[in-house]
Amino acid sequence: MSRRTISHEDGAIYEFAADLEGIETVESGTELTIETRDSLDGAVQSDDDEIETVPEEVNAATGPIAVDGAEPGSVLAVQIEAIRLAEEQGRVITIDGFGLLDGFDEIEAPRTRMTPVESDGDERAGDNGGPIEGTGSEIRFGDLEIPIDPVIGTIGVAPAGESYTTLVPHDHGGNLDTTDVAAGNTVYFPVFQDGAMLAMGDCKAAMADGEMCGTGSEIATEIDVTLEVIDDPETTIERPLIETPGAWKTVASAETLEEACQRANLDAVELLSAAHGFDPTEAYMFSSLVGGLEISQVVDPLVTVRNAIPKAYLPTPF
Amino acid sequence: MSRRTISHEDGAIYEFAADLEGIETVESGTELTIETRDSLDGAVQSDDDEIETVPEEVNAATGPIAVDGAEPGSVLAVQIEAIRLAEEQGRVITIDGFGLLDGFDEIEAPRTRMTPVESDGDERAGDNGGPIEGTGSEIRFGDLEIPIDPVIGTIGVAPAGESYTTLVPHDHGGNLDTTDVAAGNTVYFPVFQDGAMLAMGDCKAAMADGEMCGTGSEIATEIDVTLEVIDDPETTIERPLIETPGAWKTVASAETLEEACQRANLDAVELLSAAHGFDPTEAYMFSSLVGGLEISQVVDPLVTVRNAIPKAYLPTPF
Repeated sequence: MSRRTISHEDGAIYEFAADLEGIETVESGTELTIETRDSLDGAVQSDDDEIETVPEEVNAATGPIAVDGAEPGSVLAVQIEAIRLAEEQGRVITIDGFGLLDGFDEIEAPRTRMTPVESDGDERAGDNGGPIEGTGSEIRFGDLEIPIDPVIGTIGVAPAGESYTTLVPHDHGGNLDTTDVAAGNTVYFPVFQDGAMLAMGDCKAAMADGEMCGTGSEIATEIDVTLEVIDDPETTIERPLIETPGAWKTVASAETLEEACQRANLDAVELLSAAHGFDPTEAYMFSSLVGGLEISQVVDPLVTVRNAIPKAYLPTPF
Repeated sequence: MSRRTISHEDGAIYEFAADLEGIETVESGTELTIETRDSLDGAVQSDDDEIETVPEEVNAATGPIAVDGAEPGSVLAVQIEAIRLAEEQGRVITIDGFGLLDGFDEIEAPRTRMTPVESDGDERAGDNGGPIEGTGSEIRFGDLEIPIDPVIGTIGVAPAGESYTTLVPHDHGGNLDTTDVAAGNTVYFPVFQDGAMLAMGDCKAAMADGEMCGTGSEIATEIDVTLEVIDDPETTIERPLIETPGAWKTVASAETLEEACQRANLDAVELLSAAHGFDPTEAYMFSSLVGGLEISQVVDPLVTVRNAIPKAYLPTPF
């Protein structure tokens, strides 16, 4: 059976709200291909297309997808199998009022730099400008080649109460801009509403930890995922948790990096305590010896940090 | 010719000051073994030895070592060849008023946890309690084993003006608590004073990025380094720069993580601009695509961040 495809043309949101209604309902275990448009909705196609201010609608997230059986207290596992680029170029931009070095004299905004995908015609799937499925191994920035290493920037579920635009990361996920939200990894979300209401978009062909200028190489994609509902999980999570081949990573967003570090570390302390029978102080001391804090992004309205725990010290929490 | 050894018994400082005088003078190119005592000067030898408040003198740094020919404007390269543990146990501690989760109800301070080095007698060099040179591959934390992966916590040179205790990181280095200050890497320091006046100590058998509880596994060590003066460097640096096998990493310390991120990124922007003829905005956009921001430590009086640039995009700046 081929994967079902859900496109941004079927539905996309600019806000994660408690009362989202699914555009599709799928069963736990379903394999999907999700098509996403670029974070700027196609508005930037050349170096001359500059974005003056952060658009009111940005980071369109394809969905929401309702998952049967997901209900408050369960966990939604999103296994990311592949992220393929679906257009021939990405774009990096600066916007006035946005970015780590916003306001520094030497930095100009707005500015746009297109980053073409390097591929030869032979590798294209289909013909006549159809999606470049999985072709190309690099993007170009001027004379430099950068390996393609796609990241999903915005991914989340319907929140518990307050709504969050797709520019904001929080406990429901949202604009996490985290390089580990990538093929080969699984992201676990707390479910706050029936059906979970998963949506994702805002992908990048490449992105640095930090996303300093405010974007990676923003690009349309096709994402292969498998969705699983974990009923009655052994561990309750309050925020997204990422599983990579080597580590479990708590993910926390807050007003300041200090506060995000605290939350991510507190979540790690809780997981380590549960796994090893540590009291919180012991778990905190242990967390200071292995893995550690990582920066996801420092540019969104809330900033995001993760705390990596090597798998050697943490079996699956679920 | 065997390496010259400089011990903490020959001299150690608790403050990096502009007017430091060397306890030894060596030529550029000298290979040294530097012996360091643990950051708490041996005060903690069992779980019952608790540290109530941050000691006035902490992180003793062996030295200062004057390097012939180092003068303001040159760069001192410290190539770290090996870090061997020199005692049979390290220690992790919490101290009231210190650490990422200081003040959270569930965290107790003071608390001490000794972390024994796992080694069998056969591997010991010498006899009768001499240094355990390079023995053991793990430390224990309760039932858990942690691979030994030593880090130099405090390393720096005489600053330009203001003095900094060895608890504080700044442009001269100091208490950087950065996991990349490790064997196999080279740390480059700006030279502010004749002779540079290098000193180092405060090593850890293992440490997480962030050093959340305020310490790693603090332990005495023997460090093999080679010191090289780079006269008239092509690039002037204002802060430490680390070379790992795969990346160049700018290192910046500041009051907040946000500010440290800005400084580390500005330094990366400058290096990328010089290497590729980018204007600052182009370099900033490029920095947002590769490598990225990393957390060194979030607990010292100033916090420390690095910005990694893969070597594919940055030849040696010197």
